[in-house]
Amino acid sequence: MASPKTIAIDAMGGDFGPEVVIPGAALSLERQPALSFIFFGQQERIDDALGKHPKLLARSRIVHTDHVIGMDEKPSQALRRGKGSSMWLCLEAVKSLDADAAVSAGNTGALMAIAKLVLRPMPGIERPAIAALWPTVKSESIVLDVGANIGATSTQLTDYALMGAAMARAVFHIERPSVGLMNVGTEEMKGNEDVKAAHALLKSAENLPLDYKGFVEGDQIGQGAVDVVVVEGFAGNIALKTAEGTARQIGTYLRAAMGSSLMSRLGALFAQGGFRVLREKMDPRRVNGGTFLGLNGIAVKSHGGTDAFGFASAVDLAYEMADSGLIARLTADIGGFHHRLSEAGSGGVPPERSAGGALGKV
Amino acid sequence: MASPKTIAIDAMGGDFGPEVVIPGAALSLERQPALSFIFFGQQERIDDALGKHPKLLARSRIVHTDHVIGMDEKPSQALRRGKGSSMWLCLEAVKSLDADAAVSAGNTGALMAIAKLVLRPMPGIERPAIAALWPTVKSESIVLDVGANIGATSTQLTDYALMGAAMARAVFHIERPSVGLMNVGTEEMKGNEDVKAAHALLKSAENLPLDYKGFVEGDQIGQGAVDVVVVEGFAGNIALKTAEGTARQIGTYLRAAMGSSLMSRLGALFAQGGFRVLREKMDPRRVNGGTFLGLNGIAVKSHGGTDAFGFASAVDLAYEMADSGLIARLTADIGGFHHRLSEAGSGGVPPERSAGGALGKV
Repeated sequence: MASPKTIAIDAMGGDFGPEVVIPGAALSLERQPALSFIFFGQQERIDDALGKHPKLLARSRIVHTDHVIGMDEKPSQALRRGKGSSMWLCLEAVKSLDADAAVSAGNTGALMAIAKLVLRPMPGIERPAIAALWPTVKSESIVLDVGANIGATSTQLTDYALMGAAMARAVFHIERPSVGLMNVGTEEMKGNEDVKAAHALLKSAENLPLDYKGFVEGDQIGQGAVDVVVVEGFAGNIALKTAEGTARQIGTYLRAAMGSSLMSRLGALFAQGGFRVLREKMDPRRVNGGTFLGLNGIAVKSHGGTDAFGFASAVDLAYEMADSGLIARLTADIGGFHHRLSEAGSGGVPPERSAGGALGKV
Repeated sequence: MASPKTIAIDAMGGDFGPEVVIPGAALSLERQPALSFIFFGQQERIDDALGKHPKLLARSRIVHTDHVIGMDEKPSQALRRGKGSSMWLCLEAVKSLDADAAVSAGNTGALMAIAKLVLRPMPGIERPAIAALWPTVKSESIVLDVGANIGATSTQLTDYALMGAAMARAVFHIERPSVGLMNVGTEEMKGNEDVKAAHALLKSAENLPLDYKGFVEGDQIGQGAVDVVVVEGFAGNIALKTAEGTARQIGTYLRAAMGSSLMSRLGALFAQGGFRVLREKMDPRRVNGGTFLGLNGIAVKSHGGTDAFGFASAVDLAYEMADSGLIARLTADIGGFHHRLSEAGSGGVPPERSAGGALGKV
């Protein structure tokens, strides 16, 4: 399976820079021996870290820059003064086709802003989205948008469905991924106007390369009800963070409960193999990496505070996306959908609606 | 502490009707012996259930009706044909001051619609909200709105803050509850226009009976970062359901992990006391009950599928809300806030903005 792909890596991104990024890339190379890398950042620090990984060193190239974008810089600042930085150069390598995908653990907002400028949105896409891999009781699902944009029109939600389906094909290897539209279930309202309109679009659209399953609610994500969950970015970001918080909260409960008596402590000792299984299942590093979808190139954001194991997951994800030919396929899907939309509509312009309109029918 | 309060109960609501509702009320009476009850519904079934609870029987009155609102009726249907039903009568008892609070495990949408019609929103309130008790690692927080409305203007979000603070005073006995505004944290956007405007209002408003702490993110709810979390209903409902789903998902992982080897099964046996502590901590019945806030009367919604223990939690909540004099205090708070708002503004009308506007600044 392994095809030779080159990954451009922002070696200075994240809380630790090369000291996490390089061992992470080395781990990923063990799994995909045909990978090669371009590292962008401070030559000396990268050299030091690469020195401990001779196999990786043999498949790496370094592009030196002293310019680094800070974790707390605003996107607008990063756009103004980010040119020539490790992050910017790393994205330019994808643009120039020197690399097949970019990975950075740097500042999310800056990465999104620079990626949009350098790689440009696909034809027809107004708003690229950030997709997250979400662990489920079955395996994993893709949830998008988890925070690139606030609000989404019905057309944008449908674009998200196509983007998510393309990613599901790439990473889950499912030809017609199932897609659900996140909604609220209480009888009195059932969704805002944009969600309702997107539902109608997805239900009536023909030849979409996905299997639209209708509405899903928040509690169905973790059940793995669908391969792809579509939601606008404000609610999606809140859902993602709430799930992370709940997992952490239950971990706290569990530790307290297992320490609550001598018998429990003894039991926990016996059951440590089981707890290890649980920890692995709940390990956020396994699904580390938010993917920017809807750009003319692949950019993956690793969590800034992750370790080498987590960074390797992000590199794996970038590789799988690059290997699948996702961009060409998605560009065609989006083009086809917008074409049919404009044919069906009053001509030319896809219908726009105000995002997140006030409804409250009761 | 126990003051004599009367709770109006929709005996027919929920998946089980009197067979759960009556034992639930009996449990609550054990904790608050000065309570009395009016049960609305089919006399015969209520009589049967009450027969097993002589103490409760002695403090109960039954109002017979054969008319019951179905769990799947739409709010509009319920409004048209719900008059005289157990749900409607139960809310009318609060309106007529025969009861201090109403509890129903029936259809949420119908209950909200009828409650709005019968009890009427407080002066100045356009949109009553549904508040949920949310278990945290510290104790509990209040989250609203979890699904009464989609979208919320800045004034409405500020109203929610006042409503939530009033509820926190009633159930947590904190005079100046801390309040956070739910937002997304990624640098590139930081909230929509309504959330930003509400933030400005809450920061600048003087004499609000709450301690405004600024923005919180989804993962901070479970940490108990604030007593009250304010969010518009679409994202709030998704957050609540996502947290429930994640808890269930981790329960599934945990059971699988503890069955994964003989040693783990043995350990789980030893640790069963600890697991009991965990189960109690995670028991959704402990915090059963969504409260309708912003009406001229107290109405609590119990989960339709709960058992007597869960229904009793909803009755306890209704009692605490009634006992605290919440309605009078909240009416004054809301009146004061809107008065200052209109003085500060161009005069008279609170500023309205489109809810959930599209932003996406990058």
